[in-house]
Amino acid sequence: LIWIAVDAMGGDDAPRNVVDGALAATRHFDLGVLLVGQGRAIEAELAKLDVFDAVDRSRVRILDTPDVIGMNEESPAAALRRKPASSIKVAADAVARGDASALVSAGHTGATVMAAHSAFGMLPGVDRPALAAVIPTRTRPALLLDVGASVECRPPHLLQFAVMGSMFARVVYDIARPRVGLLSIGHEATKGNELTREAHQLLKASPVHFIGNVEARDVYSGGADVIVCDGFTGNVALKMSEGLVELVEGLLSEELSGTIANMVGSLFTRRALRHFRMRVDYSEYGGAPLLGVAGVTIVGHGRSSAKAVRNAVAMAYRFADTRFIARVGQEIAAASPA
Amino acid sequence: LIWIAVDAMGGDDAPRNVVDGALAATRHFDLGVLLVGQGRAIEAELAKLDVFDAVDRSRVRILDTPDVIGMNEESPAAALRRKPASSIKVAADAVARGDASALVSAGHTGATVMAAHSAFGMLPGVDRPALAAVIPTRTRPALLLDVGASVECRPPHLLQFAVMGSMFARVVYDIARPRVGLLSIGHEATKGNELTREAHQLLKASPVHFIGNVEARDVYSGGADVIVCDGFTGNVALKMSEGLVELVEGLLSEELSGTIANMVGSLFTRRALRHFRMRVDYSEYGGAPLLGVAGVTIVGHGRSSAKAVRNAVAMAYRFADTRFIARVGQEIAAASPA
Repeated sequence: LIWIAVDAMGGDDAPRNVVDGALAATRHFDLGVLLVGQGRAIEAELAKLDVFDAVDRSRVRILDTPDVIGMNEESPAAALRRKPASSIKVAADAVARGDASALVSAGHTGATVMAAHSAFGMLPGVDRPALAAVIPTRTRPALLLDVGASVECRPPHLLQFAVMGSMFARVVYDIARPRVGLLSIGHEATKGNELTREAHQLLKASPVHFIGNVEARDVYSGGADVIVCDGFTGNVALKMSEGLVELVEGLLSEELSGTIANMVGSLFTRRALRHFRMRVDYSEYGGAPLLGVAGVTIVGHGRSSAKAVRNAVAMAYRFADTRFIARVGQEIAAASPA
Repeated sequence: LIWIAVDAMGGDDAPRNVVDGALAATRHFDLGVLLVGQGRAIEAELAKLDVFDAVDRSRVRILDTPDVIGMNEESPAAALRRKPASSIKVAADAVARGDASALVSAGHTGATVMAAHSAFGMLPGVDRPALAAVIPTRTRPALLLDVGASVECRPPHLLQFAVMGSMFARVVYDIARPRVGLLSIGHEATKGNELTREAHQLLKASPVHFIGNVEARDVYSGGADVIVCDGFTGNVALKMSEGLVELVEGLLSEELSGTIANMVGSLFTRRALRHFRMRVDYSEYGGAPLLGVAGVTIVGHGRSSAKAVRNAVAMAYRFADTRFIARVGQEIAAASPA
C-alpha cells in the first residue's frame, strides 16, 4: 500500500472537506492516507463519515499534532519557526522519514512550499521549485509553471521547469512528446524581456520539444502542453484568469435574472455553465504539483472541495506510483549543459 | 473644430471600418477627421457611406500617402525606416506639425508606439511610454497600465504610470480621487519581485492615492481605478484575459448546441452573452491611450470594429479637448521627487 500524508488542517473547510476527500481517495485507489493534524477533530470527521460509508481503518492512520498555520499567515517562514508542531510541517517530515510516499496540502501555499523544501531538499540539478498549475484549453489540459513558488527566475530555471513539466505531461497525461512553450509577449525569439530572450535560446538548444514563444492569448488555445514562465508572471496569469471567471459568472447571473424569459433561459444556461465549470474547475485537476523538491508534493487550492482533495490525493498517488521523483532527477541530469 | 488624425489603413478591416467609424464620430462630436492613407481607397469608402448618410465634407480631410505597415510586421522599427510614407508615420507627423490635435490608429501597435514616440517625443519627467488598457470590473471600468509599450521597467517608471493613469481616470471617468493599486502577487508590501517591492515604497511616498498591492485575482473586482505594472506583466495579464474570454465563449457554445432543449436555452443565453460582451468588449472603450508621449495618441485594437474606431476617435477628442497632455505634464512635475 502506498501511503499519502495529508495535511488535514489545510484549507478553508479543513478538516471536514480534507478528511472527506482523503477517505474518498482510499476507496478508489490502492492507497492509505496518513491524516496529520488535531487528532480529535479528525476522529470526529471520520466518525461522521463512518455513518454513511464504513471507514476502512486499515487505510487510515492519524498523526496527532496540535498546531495549525492559518490561511492568511503573512509570513509563512516565521509561522513555521514559531509552530514546529504545525500540521504541514509534521506531514512533510513524516514523508521525509519514509512514513508516507507523498505530501498533499490545501493549506497556506507559501508554508507548504517552504515545509516541503526544508523537509525534502531540492532534486540535484534543480535550483528552484515550481508550482505547476493544470489549466484547461480548447483541447486537452496544459501545464503552466511556475505559478508562484519562485518569483525571481533566471533563464536556466525556466529550462529546468521545462524538463520537469515535460516529464509531468508524459507521466500524468500520457503525452509522448509534450510541446513546450515559453510565455512571452510576441512569437519571435527577440520579443519579450531579458529573461525570456535568454531562456528562448537555452530552450532551443535543449532536448525538450520546444515550440517557441507562446503569447498569453494562446495559452488557452491548446497549442502547447507545457508553458514555462517565472513565478511572478505565472501567478499573475493564473489569478487574472480566476478573477475573470468570477466576473463572467457574476455578470452572466446578473444578465440572466430579472425577466421571466431570462429566468427560463437561465435554467438552460445554468446547466451549460455547470458543464463549463467542470472543464475549467481546478477541483477536476486536484491540485498543483510542486516540482523540483525531492519529494512528491501536491498543493491544493485553499478553497478545495472534498472532490478536489480526493483528486489531489489521487495525483500524489500517481506521482509516487510512477516513481516520478527518481525519473525527473535522471532527466534533469541529462538536460543540463555539461 | 478639433481635428483628429486617423490612420485610415491601420487594422484588419481597414480602410472600411476605420473610415466608417471615423465618420460616425464626426456625427456625434464636435470634431473633424484627417484620414491618412491611400486616397483612392479612402474616397471609395466615403462614397459608399455617402449613399446612406450624407458625408459632411467640412468635417473630413484626406492626407494621401501610399505606404502601409502590415499588422504582422515583425520589426516595426525597420518597417518605419523602410516606409517613410507609411500612413501611421504620416499621421503622427501631421499631429506633430499641428495639422491635427490627436492621433488614432488601430494598426500595428509597436509601429504606432514608435511613430508617436518619434513624432511627439516624451513629456518632460516621463521616461517610458505606457499603453493604458481600459478593463471592465464589477463596478466601473479600471485602467491597467502598462500593457506592452515598455517591457522592462524600473520603479520610478511605475510611479510615472500611476500619475498619468490617475489623471486619465479624473479626466475621462470623472473620478475625483482615483485609487491606484500596484499589480503584485500578495497584498503585503514585501510580496512580489524586486520591481514591485521598490515601486511600492515609491508609490507610498508619492502624492497619488495609493491603496497598496492588488493581486491579479482582484483586478476585475473593481477595488482599484488604476493598476500599474511593467509592460511585460500587463501584456500577459491582458492577453490571458482575452484568450480566456474566447475559451469561455467557445466552450459555452459547445455546451449549448446539440439537444433541442439546449438550442432553446441558447437563444436566451446568446442574448445574455451579447449583453455581457458589451460590458467586457474593448470596442465599448474604443482604444488604449498611449500615455507619456507629448501628443494625444489612442491605439485601437487590431480587430477594431467601426464602433470601436468611433469610440477611439471620441476618446482622442476628449483628451485633446481637456488639454490632457499639458495637464499631465504639470502633475508629473509635481509628483517627481525633487
